[in-house]
Amino acid sequence: METASVTFLPHNRTISVNRGETLIRVALRAGVHINASCGGGGVCGKCRILLEEGSVGEGVSERLDAEDIAKGYRLACLAKVEGDVTVRVPVESSIDAAVLNQPMTPRRTAKIKTFDFNSLKEKGLFIAPVEKIYLELKPPDAANNMPDVSRLVSALRQQNALHKLELTLPMIRRLPAELRRDDFRVTATVIKPVRDDGKNLITNIQAGDRSGESYALALDIGTTTVYMQLIDLISGAIKGERGDFNSQISYGEDVISRIMYAEKEGGLATLQSVIIATINQLINKILKTSGIDRQNIATITIAGNTTMTQLLLAIDPRHLRRAPYVPAAMLYPPFPASSIRLELADHTIALLFPQISSYVGGDIVSGVMGSGMYRDSELTLFLDIGTNAEIVIGNKDWLACTACSAGPAFEGGGIEFGMRAAKGAIEDFSLDPVTWEPMLVTVGDAKPRGICGSGLLTMVALMFEMGVIDNTGKFNRSLKTARIREGHHGIWEYVLVRRDETEIDRDITLNELDIENLIRAKGAIYSGCMTLLAEVGLGMEQIERIILAGGFGSYIDLDKAMTLGLLPEIDPDRVIFIGNGSLLGTWMSSLTNRIRKDVVDVTKNMTNFELSETPSYMSNYVAAMFIPHTEIEKFPRLRARLAARRKSLSANPA
Amino acid sequence: METASVTFLPHNRTISVNRGETLIRVALRAGVHINASCGGGGVCGKCRILLEEGSVGEGVSERLDAEDIAKGYRLACLAKVEGDVTVRVPVESSIDAAVLNQPMTPRRTAKIKTFDFNSLKEKGLFIAPVEKIYLELKPPDAANNMPDVSRLVSALRQQNALHKLELTLPMIRRLPAELRRDDFRVTATVIKPVRDDGKNLITNIQAGDRSGESYALALDIGTTTVYMQLIDLISGAIKGERGDFNSQISYGEDVISRIMYAEKEGGLATLQSVIIATINQLINKILKTSGIDRQNIATITIAGNTTMTQLLLAIDPRHLRRAPYVPAAMLYPPFPASSIRLELADHTIALLFPQISSYVGGDIVSGVMGSGMYRDSELTLFLDIGTNAEIVIGNKDWLACTACSAGPAFEGGGIEFGMRAAKGAIEDFSLDPVTWEPMLVTVGDAKPRGICGSGLLTMVALMFEMGVIDNTGKFNRSLKTARIREGHHGIWEYVLVRRDETEIDRDITLNELDIENLIRAKGAIYSGCMTLLAEVGLGMEQIERIILAGGFGSYIDLDKAMTLGLLPEIDPDRVIFIGNGSLLGTWMSSLTNRIRKDVVDVTKNMTNFELSETPSYMSNYVAAMFIPHTEIEKFPRLRARLAARRKSLSANPA
Repeated sequence: METASVTFLPHNRTISVNRGETLIRVALRAGVHINASCGGGGVCGKCRILLEEGSVGEGVSERLDAEDIAKGYRLACLAKVEGDVTVRVPVESSIDAAVLNQPMTPRRTAKIKTFDFNSLKEKGLFIAPVEKIYLELKPPDAANNMPDVSRLVSALRQQNALHKLELTLPMIRRLPAELRRDDFRVTATVIKPVRDDGKNLITNIQAGDRSGESYALALDIGTTTVYMQLIDLISGAIKGERGDFNSQISYGEDVISRIMYAEKEGGLATLQSVIIATINQLINKILKTSGIDRQNIATITIAGNTTMTQLLLAIDPRHLRRAPYVPAAMLYPPFPASSIRLELADHTIALLFPQISSYVGGDIVSGVMGSGMYRDSELTLFLDIGTNAEIVIGNKDWLACTACSAGPAFEGGGIEFGMRAAKGAIEDFSLDPVTWEPMLVTVGDAKPRGICGSGLLTMVALMFEMGVIDNTGKFNRSLKTARIREGHHGIWEYVLVRRDETEIDRDITLNELDIENLIRAKGAIYSGCMTLLAEVGLGMEQIERIILAGGFGSYIDLDKAMTLGLLPEIDPDRVIFIGNGSLLGTWMSSLTNRIRKDVVDVTKNMTNFELSETPSYMSNYVAAMFIPHTEIEKFPRLRARLAARRKSLSANPA
Repeated sequence: METASVTFLPHNRTISVNRGETLIRVALRAGVHINASCGGGGVCGKCRILLEEGSVGEGVSERLDAEDIAKGYRLACLAKVEGDVTVRVPVESSIDAAVLNQPMTPRRTAKIKTFDFNSLKEKGLFIAPVEKIYLELKPPDAANNMPDVSRLVSALRQQNALHKLELTLPMIRRLPAELRRDDFRVTATVIKPVRDDGKNLITNIQAGDRSGESYALALDIGTTTVYMQLIDLISGAIKGERGDFNSQISYGEDVISRIMYAEKEGGLATLQSVIIATINQLINKILKTSGIDRQNIATITIAGNTTMTQLLLAIDPRHLRRAPYVPAAMLYPPFPASSIRLELADHTIALLFPQISSYVGGDIVSGVMGSGMYRDSELTLFLDIGTNAEIVIGNKDWLACTACSAGPAFEGGGIEFGMRAAKGAIEDFSLDPVTWEPMLVTVGDAKPRGICGSGLLTMVALMFEMGVIDNTGKFNRSLKTARIREGHHGIWEYVLVRRDETEIDRDITLNELDIENLIRAKGAIYSGCMTLLAEVGLGMEQIERIILAGGFGSYIDLDKAMTLGLLPEIDPDRVIFIGNGSLLGTWMSSLTNRIRKDVVDVTKNMTNFELSETPSYMSNYVAAMFIPHTEIEKFPRLRARLAARRKSLSANPA
């Protein structure tokens, strides 16, 4: 993607950006405040900027008259960067240069770590899990009429040095016809053993040379969403990728309500059918789009949390939600995908990621395996944040894990105007340090409908840094702005968007209960990390690297997350985002047996801690119920920043 | 069974018999001729004997008047031995003492070899294939909430030193509920690995202590009949045994016609369904009768010929009947019995005996394994005689096998009055050396309907020994008896039963074409043995032991079979009958893993010869088209007997 340079005046701050981005999003990332309250759709007309050098695309609306446009005014939310440009932000009279020159940290998200097939190979991690081998067998004659299976097996033994070969019954059934379709020229699909003493399973025989067509599916079954990748096992390329909502949502939004539904008469069978249907739709779409033959799919590697895994397999999950929280199994044997009615060939083998405990499931194990943290020496904190947060700490020598219930705040739950990161959700935010007017953008640049998790996190952290709320999350009642007010039931709130600028015909606000819920959520996670570290005799300061997995991690403003005390303070360059870790692990495991070889040991050696059984968890939790924490000395950079800001504000009273 | 001593006068021949036997059958076994033509039902009234000492049960009919009865006359076919008895056979005037004192060999059948569990154990052959292990697991608590599978596996590992444990998916599905049914007191069924490095498969978990209930099924699938045994794996006892006709008979009597049916649209599926239905009926009857719970059946071990095996598994058998006669597979992997719709629990594992070739199948391998010939050093000829005869020669060091088409003569096919060994079939026979009147008994002592294989063999051999036919099977036209006559189309025949004494209202005869067919059949088998021996550089005279398997073997009069040249001359004490060898092998394999451990090597090392590809077969066949053979020096005892008889006959001209 082509980049361009954008300079904001009077801040005199320059940032390199991808062409096509809107100026308002660029400004947010640069730490430049522009009043904006309509979410980025050009409605409020507040985000006027003046072009000084260069030009932008679009950026005009009925909110700007012809004269303004001629002068060079544009709306930042509509203006798209097309090349190097310098723009001036009209500054409110009351703000002087000192405020502008405050050291505002540009927004930093986690580095996205990508993995590719070649790097797997370079690292020696590539052990082909599937081989397609073309054979030209000698047709049987009177002098050599050994059985068809023996003919195939002896050729593979002699030509390819493969031993302990075994065929499944359905394959034996198809073998005689397939061998004779092209005069005993055939391609065998061999699933290689994970252990050296294991069996080579011949799962498919196809007439002719089909050795170039070797594919696998990787599948992440989330409570909310299901993602699938179609992988070319020869090139490592991803030939297709699809996601969809998990249709089980109609039976309950979270795992607990799913389990409760499964306990009803026929409930388990229903939930299994529903997820199988979702997966089958993905399979069929992805195969149709890619034009790849179902017969060429050798494996489907699946990761899901423990509940999703048990529901997929129709294993009663009732004990997962009842103390002492016992899953059915850690490891599951490979099985024919068609045996659970997946619309794949009879020979396609389903492989499941193992589970650690009721709340640390195959998705997390997959993420740990995919991220490679189990192979590295750095002490790593692996974090997957959602309603439940899963935490893994360790390195190549040891691993410990736990899960804690953060509550749904990060997904917009329990927040008065909370919502998922869907169209109209406020996802980024800034605050004028003098007028306390907001700058906000929404998902899809639509009229605001609510606040999503990343927006919430950013606004609360920023309000704390700017003194709008204190470290208990209470508003500074003395600030001179009508946006802070006592709302219904005497609960104080900040008005983010006024009624007429919203999509929902109500003021969208952030109130003290919302903030309290967010603090509870981040407190649960932070104290989970603290407790887990303490159990293994370590402290937060020893963390050398953070790996964020899950959708939330990609949007998170790392400085804000540290400000809030969600993440420990660490050099943001040492925070890595791996995206959907669960899908990453299944992708990688589809490509190399190294993952399956290692995963059994990793799983068996990962120590699980149940926080409910760890007395220090509650005291850690109480201590984490402040922004960032009762012990601010754990956050030295934030403390320094706050001190600088206080000094700057006292020098420039509003 | 209580025995008694029966003495026949004037022959002065005494034989020890089981009480309850009829005198006519005792006489046949003793080599004493009594005229009898109605099959043993008391109809013809010819078989009168006179009681001289002791008494018999029954033996009276309307064919005897009160006076006769008072004198002590009885009908031998109705009279039952109740204690020691001496009877006189009314001798035709023309027979003198010399004839009576001819050294007639009493009829000798093969020794029945039985095997029992204790002898398996004594021989060190017992390696338990299934273990039921009772465990009292510690219920999970907060301090130890490992997954259910892990809890089970770790107990088995620690308490029973079992490693490489694996559960199937259906078992994992049932595990959580089963563990909690009786507070974590459970019984695990473990299928032990055949090889030391194999896996221990946990196939079942039952609440409480069920370790005493461990059963297996053994199944022989014959082309005509299906037999099943229910085996107690702890005591080794057979808890039930059932047989039934293979319902596939309606679709063809022999394997070739079944294969042809399978090639039709939907034919294969039909044949599979039909045999599965037959097996399910057996399973259900045997379980009902024994009162044993289906859940306690760990395995079903199955042997059948190659066609029956492929039809059972729905594997297209078309290549079995077409050169170069290629079976689908030698070895089949274990699979869940329920996967082919056998009405057994999900966890019951089906195990199949391997196939050697299209015509030497799992039934023969099972017989070889069951008989133990592969462990002994004696050079053994294993013979299973039916429409197809399978021949295995070898010992613990090597094994070679072949199959030949004997034609259906031994099963009554191709014989004008041939029939299966069903009610009314002439099964045993003797001939008056002076009058040439017959003595015959039928299956069920009913009015004759035809001739079964063993009867045919006996009568042809006897006729040859007595000079009624020559070594090409042609009747001696000069004998003075109306029973030998030129029949329809100028074909000479012997009248076995006159029309009014039959059930079928026609004279039952044995004609020269019948004899020719029998000679072809025995010639095919004998030359099969010769050819196979020659291929491995040996001769018939080196055979140290003969093992007969299959139904035919139990009835066979060994001397007659040697006279005919069906079997090589060997001390009859070295001929062993193992009955249904296929069922024997499955029984044994159910009880000890030693069989499964050995069978792979035995099968792989058994050299199969296709007679059609062995040029010497045809010359051997031509040489065997005489009674007993062109080279009578191969049959020295027969030669001596014939010489003695000829001398006796010439000294006592009729």
